[in-house]
Amino acid sequence: KTCYNRSISLIGEMTSVSERDPSTVIPIEELHAQALERIVRSRPRLISVGRALEAIPRMRSNMILHPGPPISWERMNGVLQGAIVGALLYEGVATTEAEARDLAAQGRVALEPCHDHGAVCPGASVISPSMPVCVIKNEPFDNLACCTLSEGAGRVTRYGAYKADAIDRLEWVEKSLAPVLRQAVAAAGGLDLAELMVQAVQMGDTLGQHVKAATALLVRVLAPYMARTCANRELLWQILFFLDGHPAFFQNLAMAAAKAALDAARGIPGSRVVTAMAMNGTEFGIQVSGLGDAWFCAPLTPLQGVYLPGYGPLDASPLIGDGPIMESYGLGAFILASSPTPLLLMGGTATQAHEITSAMYNISTGTNPFYALPALSLKGAPTGVDVAAVVDRRLTPYLHVEILHKQPGGGVVGTALWQPPLEPFERALAAMG
Amino acid sequence: KTCYNRSISLIGEMTSVSERDPSTVIPIEELHAQALERIVRSRPRLISVGRALEAIPRMRSNMILHPGPPISWERMNGVLQGAIVGALLYEGVATTEAEARDLAAQGRVALEPCHDHGAVCPGASVISPSMPVCVIKNEPFDNLACCTLSEGAGRVTRYGAYKADAIDRLEWVEKSLAPVLRQAVAAAGGLDLAELMVQAVQMGDTLGQHVKAATALLVRVLAPYMARTCANRELLWQILFFLDGHPAFFQNLAMAAAKAALDAARGIPGSRVVTAMAMNGTEFGIQVSGLGDAWFCAPLTPLQGVYLPGYGPLDASPLIGDGPIMESYGLGAFILASSPTPLLLMGGTATQAHEITSAMYNISTGTNPFYALPALSLKGAPTGVDVAAVVDRRLTPYLHVEILHKQPGGGVVGTALWQPPLEPFERALAAMG
Repeated sequence: KTCYNRSISLIGEMTSVSERDPSTVIPIEELHAQALERIVRSRPRLISVGRALEAIPRMRSNMILHPGPPISWERMNGVLQGAIVGALLYEGVATTEAEARDLAAQGRVALEPCHDHGAVCPGASVISPSMPVCVIKNEPFDNLACCTLSEGAGRVTRYGAYKADAIDRLEWVEKSLAPVLRQAVAAAGGLDLAELMVQAVQMGDTLGQHVKAATALLVRVLAPYMARTCANRELLWQILFFLDGHPAFFQNLAMAAAKAALDAARGIPGSRVVTAMAMNGTEFGIQVSGLGDAWFCAPLTPLQGVYLPGYGPLDASPLIGDGPIMESYGLGAFILASSPTPLLLMGGTATQAHEITSAMYNISTGTNPFYALPALSLKGAPTGVDVAAVVDRRLTPYLHVEILHKQPGGGVVGTALWQPPLEPFERALAAMG
Repeated sequence: KTCYNRSISLIGEMTSVSERDPSTVIPIEELHAQALERIVRSRPRLISVGRALEAIPRMRSNMILHPGPPISWERMNGVLQGAIVGALLYEGVATTEAEARDLAAQGRVALEPCHDHGAVCPGASVISPSMPVCVIKNEPFDNLACCTLSEGAGRVTRYGAYKADAIDRLEWVEKSLAPVLRQAVAAAGGLDLAELMVQAVQMGDTLGQHVKAATALLVRVLAPYMARTCANRELLWQILFFLDGHPAFFQNLAMAAAKAALDAARGIPGSRVVTAMAMNGTEFGIQVSGLGDAWFCAPLTPLQGVYLPGYGPLDASPLIGDGPIMESYGLGAFILASSPTPLLLMGGTATQAHEITSAMYNISTGTNPFYALPALSLKGAPTGVDVAAVVDRRLTPYLHVEILHKQPGGGVVGTALWQPPLEPFERALAAMG
């Protein structure tokens, strides 16, 4: 129904290392390549909109999932604490901010990384049991990934807000937005995110902080099904108007699609491919295929941000969010050569954008032919960060990150290209022996 | 409401030559520049969906407007004749193909170029009195331009089809599509096409044969208003489903927006800026600002097409359509450097795309800062073809054209980058004295 990019036809042509006779001894280098191959062969599909408690297998009613590597309540910064207070108020387990903080401080709420539950959280957002979540299935490998629905800009829990308006917004997402999307996705028989994202990359999205084309394509594809299934015209107007005003809506979905692809590459012995990179507002951490679910972390290092008028480094919260799952997937800052707009808006040039992508090929295991970059005559995106290459070249991945205000709910104040510290990569490589 | 590109903020900063004291003598070179300035300052806005007979000032009930320079019925090729037969059957002034052909051959229907009526026709499409048309207003200059609504792919009159299914499609456009769009555009208070097109260029559209981002943005912006104004849910579903399946829908609107901008630059004495380029299936013709509404034509020259599987040059109709209004506006093939996908799909490279755009700067009067090309670090698109530069360098503009099947209704069989003959440019330059 939608227009296929020609690269999509490659899907049927690829062969799988994993289809080989399992009795054969497979050399380490090939296992390493297998992780890349599983990332490339992934086909994330939005299959339903559910509720976190039911959709996330090990979710519990007294659990909140947060972005980044593991961190205790005490070590969390104000923005992430704010988001957790917001979630507890939204769940109704606390009725005041003080009560919520007490619950968290007393350890009566389990706080775990969403990455450890097949989920991702952009910015300072968290997942609590009642929140609606999009369920993404990676069809060739049968694994699932989840994300919340983006609540829009302004004072939202995603940026640490927890006042009444932020809680109202979460309830609107649950009571209005989620049911309309749920019905539309069901009526459409699910939605091929892989195909949509391949098209969006052709249209200049990085699919990291820049998902405008993907959001517009999502609306184009889902609007007919919303019209078919939503009998309440006022509500339909409200949802479509919200989506028109929120070009970043697709961000959560892109992240969950990337998460689904990278989770398929987890746990391959000997593979040095990075399966996650994320920040929790205090530390930066990575996970590596051959090292399973272990995190390798280091404190956040300084960055050169580009700030909105009136803001500067003193307003900035330390980096937070699972956004770098996009660079782990070979997109985001990795494809600036072909999608330079975010860099140009920071004052950079198209030449610098090419240099950044060039450098990322040097630390990547290979390329993803589906994400064919127009500016490079359809060369595949650099994909599968290789910890050995990172350490060898002392070159960490470029990450395109958003900078939040340090006041909970202050929103986005800037943006940056940031290279995380080398230490987690060195420690992961050492751990591989 | 939608996300503005930063280039849009330049609009307020530009000064106008035309605001100067009219008693001053203005040198020829400056008048030439004024044509470019009027093109750049244009802001086409979709203000309504009307009916051709009422919306086009000199339209008459026995008139049909066709693409390209003037041409008699006898000299028209089969595809264009087919479209005219289709229009006469749709209007009900003929009930059989033979009757329609007789009417046209007897000169009982006035056949005039849509370019001479402030309108544009893509492919072999024509405008007849009852057809719904989009009305685009160029606000700073108060001029209007019109286009039909794209009927979709397949056997449609746009490709010369005139059988029952093609006529049914025209009726569906009139009775179903147009009313829903009309109400939505009215409820939205019109739609700023300039802003939408600026965004689409950032998203890799050439806005010539490649308008996928613009179509998706159009749906994103109008869907809420459709939901608000269309009480018939089945119809709403149908329209949104049609738009999802027709990523080229925006093409007509892009052409009419370009037409509105170029018409604002008509009739400036001494200006060598091209205000229209078009083909009628027999000849290629141009119009030039300083030469008013005169056409300068030459027979079509051969092209190197890239054909769909199973088709070749023997299936091709000679080129037809007002599509090159986009290159006249500085878009289409002129911005391949930044939107290389169409060239890559023809087997070209990103480097060739850069070379083509580079060459077009050499024959352009200047640049349009609103169409800021990401791949060139936001340099403005090459705009305002200068006939003197074309003749001086013996380099005619690159045009991205679609190749139609020579059988009426056969549809698109290929695509090409084509450089038209030099002769019309030479003759126009000579006419300027």
